[in-house]
Amino acid sequence: MSGPVTLAVDIGGTTVKSALVDEAGAVVARHATPTGRGEAARDAVRRSVEQLAARAQDLGLALSGVGVVSPGVIDRDRGVVEYASNLDWAHVSLRNVVAAVVDVPVAVGHDAGAAGDAEWQLGAARGCRDFVHASVGTGIAASLVVGGRRIEGRSGGAGELGHTPVRPGGERCPCGQRGCLEVYASGGGVSRRYLALSGRSATAREVVERVDHDAVARRVWDDAVACWVTALAACTLLLEPELVVLGGGLAEAGEDLLGPVRAGLAEALTWREPPEVRASELGPDAALLGAALLARRA
Amino acid sequence: MSGPVTLAVDIGGTTVKSALVDEAGAVVARHATPTGRGEAARDAVRRSVEQLAARAQDLGLALSGVGVVSPGVIDRDRGVVEYASNLDWAHVSLRNVVAAVVDVPVAVGHDAGAAGDAEWQLGAARGCRDFVHASVGTGIAASLVVGGRRIEGRSGGAGELGHTPVRPGGERCPCGQRGCLEVYASGGGVSRRYLALSGRSATAREVVERVDHDAVARRVWDDAVACWVTALAACTLLLEPELVVLGGGLAEAGEDLLGPVRAGLAEALTWREPPEVRASELGPDAALLGAALLARRA
Repeated sequence: MSGPVTLAVDIGGTTVKSALVDEAGAVVARHATPTGRGEAARDAVRRSVEQLAARAQDLGLALSGVGVVSPGVIDRDRGVVEYASNLDWAHVSLRNVVAAVVDVPVAVGHDAGAAGDAEWQLGAARGCRDFVHASVGTGIAASLVVGGRRIEGRSGGAGELGHTPVRPGGERCPCGQRGCLEVYASGGGVSRRYLALSGRSATAREVVERVDHDAVARRVWDDAVACWVTALAACTLLLEPELVVLGGGLAEAGEDLLGPVRAGLAEALTWREPPEVRASELGPDAALLGAALLARRA
Repeated sequence: MSGPVTLAVDIGGTTVKSALVDEAGAVVARHATPTGRGEAARDAVRRSVEQLAARAQDLGLALSGVGVVSPGVIDRDRGVVEYASNLDWAHVSLRNVVAAVVDVPVAVGHDAGAAGDAEWQLGAARGCRDFVHASVGTGIAASLVVGGRRIEGRSGGAGELGHTPVRPGGERCPCGQRGCLEVYASGGGVSRRYLALSGRSATAREVVERVDHDAVARRVWDDAVACWVTALAACTLLLEPELVVLGGGLAEAGEDLLGPVRAGLAEALTWREPPEVRASELGPDAALLGAALLARRA
């Protein structure tokens, strides 16, 4: 056997993505399967690990460890997802799920933190000591690095940028709060607001494509950009980062998002230099590669 | 000579407060003088040091170091205030100002950071690893401690809670931005808004005293509380602190401020336990005692 490789698993709301990753950080093999919810989601993780462990054996590669990242509230030391609303999970030991399949060290982490760590070590934030990383997909997940350390908070729950109140008393968020950034500025939020205001279904990307000839699309997108500006201005004033990295599906809108956010930040911050705003370098693989980094430290 | 004592100087917008502080943290002698602006403010610092150094000699106490804290942008390593708008200062070397008077080590720091450090070591945040400290006076100055370390930011400018946008596109702040927390929720802001809306002058404390029988006072105070709730909710979601300490003149409103802020935070945060909200223990001396701590480390 040669190798070694790590097995990385990124549990998303719709798909469990997994990969074998070699020591240089290159993906050797991939697997993807629908996530489902509850017991089904647990099975999806188990099957992913089985498939790729078998694949490693076929390829003659030694497996050195497994890294699994999940949304929700994570107890990293115990390897347990305490709560993840999108997965219908409470107190799910991912460490046990994986250990039932393979006999190597298992590390469990938060998807947003893992994606931020991957951009930090391998991507757009290399060498940065103070930055904000946000993955903008169905929801918004962020990772805040300050003075060369990722902020964890009292119990690992820091970085909930998506639920900061950018429109106090504003529209209700599925989380129960009002005026959250996610309501206006996530992929899910943009799509939901467009449907509510126009009566037509569209993905967030479709909304972005319509802004030049559709007044509702224009309004929804302008709101999204304005809310990003408010949230990132607050982060800048509180944490003084040198860089903001935007990743996830909606960030693939590229300059349609980054351009107006940069302009808005420069206008909102009258006496502080705005941080640089850059697109993710690792794209949709950020959390997966972060899980591989986690496995190496396991 | 016995002792030693440190000489602490807190440069406020209206008064330079200074003190000799013994090793137990007790104030042995005090001095206060109007700050003025520009050259006058520099003289006020020099005179304060002269007065208290002479006083230490009279008392037979050895002076071990001087700690000076200022608002503005501080280069702590060089002991220079790079910029302080309220003092009309640019590139003022406080280290040189003090060193021209006494021959002991001089440390220079930021007033908000020093106040937060004092509450951390001696006051309301003792033993805390994750907290937000805000001094609410004419303006708002904050200090953010995360994972047992005070957040500095890329160039020492983190913690500008007073200028986070709590009402996007809202009223203009003297800083040039719109909708800053300080506009609505500082002592200066409350007083200014009351004057603008009622045509009558009142200090922020007088506004608080009028809320039961004056509709304008009620409205201004309700706005102030709502803005505190928005800003502290954002801090809680980003940093997950266990504690918020409110100090400074306006915090002396006590439960008139703390009570509604606690209630508002509990309502705004539907799925995260709100941090405890506590009044400062050191009161108006927090920054001064922080300067004494700084002097000890000089």
